[in-house]
Amino acid sequence: MYTFSDSLKAIKPGGGVRALAKYKSLPGMISFTSGVPASEFLPVDDLKTAYNAMMEENGRTALQYCDTAGWYHTREQICSRMKIRNQIDAKPGDVTLTVGSGHALYVCGRLFLNPGDVVLLEAPSYAGAIQAFQACQANFVVVPTNENGPIVEELDKILATTKNVKLMYAIPEFQNPSGHTWSLEVRKQFMEVINKYEVPVLEDNPYGELRFKGDFLPSLRSMDPKGLVIYLGSFSKILSPGLRLGWTCATPELAEKITLMVNTSVLQASTTTAMHISKYLDMFDLDEHLSKIIPIYKHRCELMLNTMKETFPDGIKFSEPEGGLFTWVEMPDYVDTKELSMKGVEKRVLFVPGFGFFPDGGNRHCLRLNYSSSTDDQIVEGIHRLAEVIKENI
Amino acid sequence: MYTFSDSLKAIKPGGGVRALAKYKSLPGMISFTSGVPASEFLPVDDLKTAYNAMMEENGRTALQYCDTAGWYHTREQICSRMKIRNQIDAKPGDVTLTVGSGHALYVCGRLFLNPGDVVLLEAPSYAGAIQAFQACQANFVVVPTNENGPIVEELDKILATTKNVKLMYAIPEFQNPSGHTWSLEVRKQFMEVINKYEVPVLEDNPYGELRFKGDFLPSLRSMDPKGLVIYLGSFSKILSPGLRLGWTCATPELAEKITLMVNTSVLQASTTTAMHISKYLDMFDLDEHLSKIIPIYKHRCELMLNTMKETFPDGIKFSEPEGGLFTWVEMPDYVDTKELSMKGVEKRVLFVPGFGFFPDGGNRHCLRLNYSSSTDDQIVEGIHRLAEVIKENI
Repeated sequence: MYTFSDSLKAIKPGGGVRALAKYKSLPGMISFTSGVPASEFLPVDDLKTAYNAMMEENGRTALQYCDTAGWYHTREQICSRMKIRNQIDAKPGDVTLTVGSGHALYVCGRLFLNPGDVVLLEAPSYAGAIQAFQACQANFVVVPTNENGPIVEELDKILATTKNVKLMYAIPEFQNPSGHTWSLEVRKQFMEVINKYEVPVLEDNPYGELRFKGDFLPSLRSMDPKGLVIYLGSFSKILSPGLRLGWTCATPELAEKITLMVNTSVLQASTTTAMHISKYLDMFDLDEHLSKIIPIYKHRCELMLNTMKETFPDGIKFSEPEGGLFTWVEMPDYVDTKELSMKGVEKRVLFVPGFGFFPDGGNRHCLRLNYSSSTDDQIVEGIHRLAEVIKENI
Repeated sequence: MYTFSDSLKAIKPGGGVRALAKYKSLPGMISFTSGVPASEFLPVDDLKTAYNAMMEENGRTALQYCDTAGWYHTREQICSRMKIRNQIDAKPGDVTLTVGSGHALYVCGRLFLNPGDVVLLEAPSYAGAIQAFQACQANFVVVPTNENGPIVEELDKILATTKNVKLMYAIPEFQNPSGHTWSLEVRKQFMEVINKYEVPVLEDNPYGELRFKGDFLPSLRSMDPKGLVIYLGSFSKILSPGLRLGWTCATPELAEKITLMVNTSVLQASTTTAMHISKYLDMFDLDEHLSKIIPIYKHRCELMLNTMKETFPDGIKFSEPEGGLFTWVEMPDYVDTKELSMKGVEKRVLFVPGFGFFPDGGNRHCLRLNYSSSTDDQIVEGIHRLAEVIKENI
């Protein structure tokens, strides 16, 4: 009757958070799956105040279409933030608003990738990005990675010997899922290799502002004389994921192409949302909001790490992030965390098995835990349950 | 340094409204380009009231992620409306929320189309849809069309002789750009042919509720025993385009695939927006809002048609729509409306040249006028200017 496209067939869903959603509503379930801000600290009242002020002043404009690249003042404000936080010197014309950064990375995949082209990924990498590039029918090559970021010598070898590499996808800050942050030295070496081979880079940075230890580091985009880096930002983790607003920052030539793909895929991101967030940024201090939630995430992270140290059997490693939302747990090689996750469901604790973070589904002995969206009690109880599951099953 | 994808290269922008945006801000310009609701009648206060109620009750939920298919109650409400307005008997599981129907048609294109596959279009058809299918590297075959819809015998011949037809794109109500509506008889005959060849149909219906003459007709989706039709709806023209919320309605099998492509392309449509519109629909009567704006659009349409009758030279035809936002003007064959549009810019009147509504850029003697978003004075003055431009240049 109908045949589906090769693009659709190339998408392999089911490794990510959304596949586990059905278990979350089981009674008594403690879930460490979603990468979401803590609901109880979302700035509901301030966002409401900003919305009302924006609609009073400019309601008719907010409810109509606007430029495809997005509301201009919002893009100006994004430039100001990127200058301070990411050392990026950008103009509004470099910025395109998107429907969250999930949309941005799909659009950027579509910009460069023909079927069979190669995308380089950190190992592990974000499951949603893998899915977006699968839709472009990309092939994947995984760059070996340690706690300081990709191993640059290996990246150099891969680029020297791999044909049709069209894109490197990177999450330098509090990587999803590993929690690791690239060192300054790795960033510099990485950009040297990128400049040598002139490969476009997607620098995905949704968590960068959620730093609770160490210093802010310069973004890859700020070390990019050839204009190879497309920086992706998002309000999802610092303000609200339900609003769905992200952005790209790139050279004007690339920004124009990104805007065309945004136009083609969704027409434009919401005018209302862009003007709403803009008003929020004018009326309130996002940094003050962040200064409230960051210590909470720090505390929750430490509580989770300490509880794992107390309760987990020997031989299990986990990352100690300096910010962001996740820690990454490595079990002994023989453990299958997908099977383990079903045992977890029985004990009412939920985590994301590691296989979804690798394009080949490998590394089945790892798992991802989110700490930002659980209370202290849930973290302690959930980790105790997980420790039990581990002890009983490995 | 980098090469762009074949998908990007296949997009031929510049025929649509957004290419003309730069002229709209010229002093004294009267624009008939955009397909937008009248700004002065947007329900700003009611939407504000609904937003506040929704945020009071459920703010934290509204600011988080939700199901990829979209907020459940919104989908229930959409089903209720479709039952009354479109004779569609759907369940929430058949419905997927999208970022406006522009997103829906991109997603549906990606569902079926491999490079080189054929999409059938009415002649003329919506420029944004053509652009979305170009991104899928589709080929186009145009189905001859008259004021009652596609000529079904021609469609039958095309389907009998054309390979790799994967999709028929249709706008049965107040078609964009022609303003024509398919007759009931054409709908029946069309669905017979579609059932014979079993081709998936995208039924795009953003304007259907804006009927100011004649009776509501059953949708194609309501005459679809084999489940071949994907119905696309939108809040853009009946409520607000800046909110960016649309939906698809299809069989559960297709809905699942559409939801996967929504997930891949944008993660999900905005939770906040879906819950906001849901609250608006609960608290206010959208039909009452429509009953206010429809007579205004009827009046503006008639004023435009009458002014054209009074001022245009002989030999120029235009459609007389029963609803929607547009009328379609046919000049003598030798006129190039792209050139004419530049003469219009000089006289400070803006319209959309016809070439963007044909995949091959043909039919350069036609143009599209929007009447919904101009005041009476603007319509009379703008049409007088256009008449002058025509008299001086053809």
